[in-house]
Amino acid sequence: GIRESLEGTNEADVASLLDELEMEEVLYVLRVLEHEFAADVLIELDEESQFKLVQEMESEELALLLDSMESDDAVDILHQLVVKDREDVISHLQEKEKAGHIMELLRYEEGSAGALMAKEFIKANLNWTVVQTIDEIRRQAENVEKIYSIYVVDNKESLLGRVALKKIILGSANTKIKDIFEEDIISVPTYMDEEEIAEIMRKYDLEALPVVNAKNKLVGRITVDDVLDVIREQAEEDMQAMTGISDDVEESDSVFRLSKARLPWLLIGIFGGLMGARIIGVFNDGLSKYIQLASFIPLITATGGNVGIQSSSLVVQSLAAKSVFAESIGKRFAKVLLVAMLNGIVLGAVVFGTVVFVYGNEVKFGIVVGFALFSVVLLASFMGTVTPIVLDKFGINPAMASGPFITTANDLLGLAVYFLVAMMLLNL
Amino acid sequence: GIRESLEGTNEADVASLLDELEMEEVLYVLRVLEHEFAADVLIELDEESQFKLVQEMESEELALLLDSMESDDAVDILHQLVVKDREDVISHLQEKEKAGHIMELLRYEEGSAGALMAKEFIKANLNWTVVQTIDEIRRQAENVEKIYSIYVVDNKESLLGRVALKKIILGSANTKIKDIFEEDIISVPTYMDEEEIAEIMRKYDLEALPVVNAKNKLVGRITVDDVLDVIREQAEEDMQAMTGISDDVEESDSVFRLSKARLPWLLIGIFGGLMGARIIGVFNDGLSKYIQLASFIPLITATGGNVGIQSSSLVVQSLAAKSVFAESIGKRFAKVLLVAMLNGIVLGAVVFGTVVFVYGNEVKFGIVVGFALFSVVLLASFMGTVTPIVLDKFGINPAMASGPFITTANDLLGLAVYFLVAMMLLNL
Ligand SMILES: [Mg+2]
Ligand SMILES: [Mg+2]
Ligand SMILES: [Mg+2]
Ligand SMILES: [Mg+2]
Ligand SMILES: [Mg+2]
Ligand SMILES: [Mg+2]
Ligand SMILES: [Mg+2]
Ligand SMILES: [Mg+2]
Ligand SMILES: [Mg+2]
Ligand SMILES: [Mg+2]
Ligand SMILES: [Mg+2]
Ligand SMILES: [Mg+2]
Ligand SMILES: [Mg+2]
Repeated sequence: GIRESLEGTNEADVASLLDELEMEEVLYVLRVLEHEFAADVLIELDEESQFKLVQEMESEELALLLDSMESDDAVDILHQLVVKDREDVISHLQEKEKAGHIMELLRYEEGSAGALMAKEFIKANLNWTVVQTIDEIRRQAENVEKIYSIYVVDNKESLLGRVALKKIILGSANTKIKDIFEEDIISVPTYMDEEEIAEIMRKYDLEALPVVNAKNKLVGRITVDDVLDVIREQAEEDMQAMTGISDDVEESDSVFRLSKARLPWLLIGIFGGLMGARIIGVFNDGLSKYIQLASFIPLITATGGNVGIQSSSLVVQSLAAKSVFAESIGKRFAKVLLVAMLNGIVLGAVVFGTVVFVYGNEVKFGIVVGFALFSVVLLASFMGTVTPIVLDKFGINPAMASGPFITTANDLLGLAVYFLVAMMLLNL
Repeated sequence: GIRESLEGTNEADVASLLDELEMEEVLYVLRVLEHEFAADVLIELDEESQFKLVQEMESEELALLLDSMESDDAVDILHQLVVKDREDVISHLQEKEKAGHIMELLRYEEGSAGALMAKEFIKANLNWTVVQTIDEIRRQAENVEKIYSIYVVDNKESLLGRVALKKIILGSANTKIKDIFEEDIISVPTYMDEEEIAEIMRKYDLEALPVVNAKNKLVGRITVDDVLDVIREQAEEDMQAMTGISDDVEESDSVFRLSKARLPWLLIGIFGGLMGARIIGVFNDGLSKYIQLASFIPLITATGGNVGIQSSSLVVQSLAAKSVFAESIGKRFAKVLLVAMLNGIVLGAVVFGTVVFVYGNEVKFGIVVGFALFSVVLLASFMGTVTPIVLDKFGINPAMASGPFITTANDLLGLAVYFLVAMMLLNL
């Protein structure tokens, strides 16, 4: 039957299959499966499927599945419900300890260490022996799927260090934990941002990371599998911000959905383009007298776009790495300015040379195009640097700085600069 | 002294400090450190520092450091040397078994599972008992830093499954491995691409992944810490491809280096812009008669750019996920075309309406701009879809499809389409 053939398959693969089905079919399949396996599959479904499912399920039914999940996964599922329904499901949980854990985790802000951590991990008191620790592992074996390290705490539950599972296996029964544990341990506070956590786990080669509260009390553990999901989600969000695809679509979605996801940002680009037409329209008289000006419009807007995206990507990269800047804000901007001036001079000179000596335009016209380009490079560098910093300050994804909205705004600024420079220098 | 204060610090933090120093200073510090710690630090240095260092070190000295590294890290270091020097270093290694492992790993193609895996892992024969397995763990404890799972093999070294370390701890001494191991195990072939490996580890929540040869013989193991580095490197490469920053620069690099990294692609953009000027120049006569045509140049190029980047980012996303396409190539292109037509019609209609009813242009002119925009949307969708697929086929990073080169090429195509449509419909 369905049950036998699916239960021999990995839960993630079953979930990939079910993601393609209608909600009623998925619900039917989940009800056929043994409930621990159904819980594993539910965790692996995509958010869209999860959302539809949990709205439809009875509280008792959902609680039964949550009972066999680790607390962090249960919380992810509960986040798909409105607060009232969450409480109803929690009230139906069998284990009261787990219900308490889940209520604790629900309180942390999304995207923080607290929201990412699980309450399932193994801790050992400093004064325990290896044998006592193994007893604890046995007691918790059902609850904690992956152990990695045993965290060592004192009588106040303060985190002191860790013992690798390997050491427990190789230690003799009566060895005290305090004689074999490692004191050097990296932990993070509950409020730390998930992207920073990903970078810490990468830098220090960690598969699990303990989370402590303000008093250094061990309150949870983040595992690398969940961090891999965070990294992928972040990459998708950045890509969406940069390309202006406003919904989480894939190539396999319907034509209508794909179209709908793209249109909003394309329309913003269109309104930008229509405003650009107005700006150029203002200079129509001058343009008629000096028709070659039109030829260099794409050069100006394209270079502005390229410079802007290069500048912003470097800033976004620094923001993501949360690197502590050795250099002051002032010094950083001075540097941005210097790089922009250097590049602006080179590009301006190349364009001047080509316009005058290859295309045979007047020297005066070459100066106009070259100088306008130089100005646009400066302006685009400045905007490309400032915009992501400002967006980040307001809690908006800084990758938006390379998105259609900002790119369009920069096009308009570039056009205005180009025509103003031209009108002034050519006395039009 | 330096030694005491540094050896109390995490190797990754020491490496971050040393990355900021001159090569001679780094070499001095490494020579002061105890050689096992020096090896840990060397692994964590950035590639630039590693490269300079290993060119300078004597073979004996480097071999001493490699002796205390896991094979995959030793191979990463050796890749910084020319083949002749590699062999010299390998000939100085103490352990002949490790030398053999390293020579094996050096043969795999960069970016493949074979090049990413380490030879250090624990395997147990199907017929062993728990106690025999613990003896093996003890024997290998020095060599294998992180164990995670014990891989189960038969007498021919074929991979059969795995036992979690947790089960070994909780099992009784005489339990046979064959009675407690899990047969469901995910493994990858030596030639699998590293990006695909990252996706497998994410999807199946793995912290380690066994690698097998064509005969299903277990030949290595990939750990998640190295996969986190692969993911970050890939993200950086994609960002460079998309923004045309041709070197691995950071905000903290020198003005000259930052400028040099940006200029090549900006110059390509400039040449594109200059060619655009030629294209528009061809239509100067028509443009003089119908000066409003100039006003809509930015609308055309910007929309082409936005549509192109949206299309290519969806394809790049599919390529990265290596998702098996349920849909045939033909069906996928039909869909791209339908989405493009739908969006093209909406955008074209909006522009037609604005140009005619708001800006008060002639109906004929509105048709020109609207229809040209529609054509550009179709063309940009097609280019944005095809380009990454073609690049990928030729082994070039498909994210380049959103880079300055392709964007510039699309601008030129868009301009040509716009002016050709205008000349035809307006009889210029
Ligand atoms: Mg489970
Ligand atoms: Mg976030
Ligand atoms: Mg979670
Ligand atoms: Mg690392
Ligand atoms: Mg490492
Ligand atoms: Mg988890
Ligand atoms: Mg070591
Ligand atoms: Mg690669
Ligand atoms: Mg490696
Ligand atoms: Mg996962
Ligand atoms: Mg998971
Ligand atoms: Mg490794
Ligand atoms: Mg553009």
